[in-house]
Amino acid sequence: MNGKRVPQPIITLLTDFGERDGYVAAMKGAILTVAPHARIIDISHGIDRHNIRSAAYVLASSCTAFPRGSIHIAVVDPGVGTARRAIGIQTGGHWLIGPDNGILSWAADRLGKPVAHEMTNRSWMQRSVSATFHGRDVFAPAAAHLAAGGSATQLGPKCSAFLRLDRGVTHSSRRLVGTVVHIDHFGNVVTTLLEDDVERAFGRGWRQRVQCRIGRYRMRVGQTYADVPAGSLLGLIGSAGHLEIAANATSAAASIGARYGTTVTVTPV
Amino acid sequence: MNGKRVPQPIITLLTDFGERDGYVAAMKGAILTVAPHARIIDISHGIDRHNIRSAAYVLASSCTAFPRGSIHIAVVDPGVGTARRAIGIQTGGHWLIGPDNGILSWAADRLGKPVAHEMTNRSWMQRSVSATFHGRDVFAPAAAHLAAGGSATQLGPKCSAFLRLDRGVTHSSRRLVGTVVHIDHFGNVVTTLLEDDVERAFGRGWRQRVQCRIGRYRMRVGQTYADVPAGSLLGLIGSAGHLEIAANATSAAASIGARYGTTVTVTPV
Amino acid sequence: MNGKRVPQPIITLLTDFGERDGYVAAMKGAILTVAPHARIIDISHGIDRHNIRSAAYVLASSCTAFPRGSIHIAVVDPGVGTARRAIGIQTGGHWLIGPDNGILSWAADRLGKPVAHEMTNRSWMQRSVSATFHGRDVFAPAAAHLAAGGSATQLGPKCSAFLRLDRGVTHSSRRLVGTVVHIDHFGNVVTTLLEDDVERAFGRGWRQRVQCRIGRYRMRVGQTYADVPAGSLLGLIGSAGHLEIAANATSAAASIGARYGTTVTVTPV
Repeated sequence: MNGKRVPQPIITLLTDFGERDGYVAAMKGAILTVAPHARIIDISHGIDRHNIRSAAYVLASSCTAFPRGSIHIAVVDPGVGTARRAIGIQTGGHWLIGPDNGILSWAADRLGKPVAHEMTNRSWMQRSVSATFHGRDVFAPAAAHLAAGGSATQLGPKCSAFLRLDRGVTHSSRRLVGTVVHIDHFGNVVTTLLEDDVERAFGRGWRQRVQCRIGRYRMRVGQTYADVPAGSLLGLIGSAGHLEIAANATSAAASIGARYGTTVTVTPV
Repeated sequence: MNGKRVPQPIITLLTDFGERDGYVAAMKGAILTVAPHARIIDISHGIDRHNIRSAAYVLASSCTAFPRGSIHIAVVDPGVGTARRAIGIQTGGHWLIGPDNGILSWAADRLGKPVAHEMTNRSWMQRSVSATFHGRDVFAPAAAHLAAGGSATQLGPKCSAFLRLDRGVTHSSRRLVGTVVHIDHFGNVVTTLLEDDVERAFGRGWRQRVQCRIGRYRMRVGQTYADVPAGSLLGLIGSAGHLEIAANATSAAASIGARYGTTVTVTPV
Repeated sequence: MNGKRVPQPIITLLTDFGERDGYVAAMKGAILTVAPHARIIDISHGIDRHNIRSAAYVLASSCTAFPRGSIHIAVVDPGVGTARRAIGIQTGGHWLIGPDNGILSWAADRLGKPVAHEMTNRSWMQRSVSATFHGRDVFAPAAAHLAAGGSATQLGPKCSAFLRLDRGVTHSSRRLVGTVVHIDHFGNVVTTLLEDDVERAFGRGWRQRVQCRIGRYRMRVGQTYADVPAGSLLGLIGSAGHLEIAANATSAAASIGARYGTTVTVTPV
């Protein structure tokens, strides 16, 4: 994010399509047909089917690593073929492209001051738009046209608002409450709570003064996995700034049976 | 596929190698050693082991999204190290590279008028060709030499024919029969039947007049998943033009216990 | 590896991060921020969690396919956030970047004569280095700075030694013993024994004269899978030069219940 001129526009892809069927490749073919110079980077195609919140978290936590000028396509789209809108959001020098179902919203606010456009330009879509695969027929070509120098106004008219996901964070006297938003490959259980939320609630030096609770498990907060014995649970601020429940050298998710949406509470010790 | 000049040749890869072991990466290293400018795109490395028909379907359904000039390597190759031929097929401005076991055949006919060459040029292979890894030692370097400007005649002599997979489609009075050729990440059950097959058999407006049958299940045909209630089955023409059995918001394959090769029948209601 | 000038530096990635969470993408974003021209190739992100030996094998067996000038990042790093060193190794015209836990050692010795540097240059790291994600914050930017023209001395001071993994190969009278180092996608069971080890122990023409033993299974050595009937086991020299236990058209690992670390013995027939 140093503003260096990127000679080839970066387009990233995030979907729940898996990588077995050629769907992602068809999106890449559609991109390269319009923007042969684009540099395509996969963020993830392993989002749990239709899990918009998990996708929104993964997008927000990885898009910030890319330089300004990057274009991020995110497609977890259970409503494909229905009336849900397609949008492009300009924010902090990045573009976010996808369905208006909230998937883009956390990234939009993390990157900058978002301005959304509804994607209505038929000439930027495939000649024949399938009912089931807007990733290839709508989102990929639109991103490619932007990468090839197209403008926001060509994408479509500004919209006054876009759908924002609620983090579901509440703070009442001495209790900060969030929910599980993502469970990663290592079994780390990521919550909707940001480091800022915890610091605002409990003040500087909060790490020594709070405990986390999820289900019947309680744990202290550390700095890194090795702060607790192997197999033990701890809370920590993960690499994307979210409070997560982890375990040293094992899967916290398996240990505690965590699920998406489970409540996580932070209280004073 | 708009004939725009592509500054860096595109090479796509389709295998059943998985992505855990570095096999695909070794192919990419072999490509970049010969053609440092090549732009490498993965189609899939998750094809079911040795499932040539599934691979042929995935290749045919995604290669058309790439611009002319693209070179597609496909390696599902249970006969590696035996006498099966290695071939390159020029078709519709694309190249297809792989073993002559049928894997290339559906893509070859979908892209254009195929002309096949047997790959016999030893100087385009690795100095020492292993018995078990022609992806790295034969197919990748040949594709890279083509990407670097090599010609069809350098690849090897034309062959009069190549192995073509049979779609196994039959049409007798009022019954159109195909088989399951691919089951995707979402559990959509793709058949060998093309939209053209159904329209030829039942005429325009066929969607209202036919039903599909697979095992003991029957379903009507719709336009998109949301045409039926959540959990219900429907037939639809998928994004690659094949008839598929799908379900709204769940896995059709799991619901009906579909397997590769299962018969699917279309009849009038 | 033909010394051709590569116009865009190649950076390869090998981790146990999986591809679901955006971690790998964050590394790629960090690379492209510093080195917009870098060409990024995934070797594997599916290494078994914390299995340093398996990662070291996969790296050594695929890095040799890449041209000189390539930079390979490998991160299987159970000690992240502790005092373990970060190192860069220059060897045979390649760079290897990762933690000093042995993961780089087999590749280092296979590629050439390794010279190691400790990575101490804070200005080549992210401004704020997280405790849990040195892949993004330390290794990726360092590799990118090298790709952008940075020098070995900028990386950090030379170190006299780096941690080398032991292959665990022993040769006593008429018995050559190794262990299982990797089990691949097809169920091939790769050992630490190299073709050279076997030839040195049993002389030229060893294939006809030895048998392999793993657990209660014994098998002869062949050239390719088809040398034995479908379902039968055989030993063969795999595409990376290691002795492996394979089976024709099925998974040897499943047939024999092989595990990482299991002993494999070669003896005269």
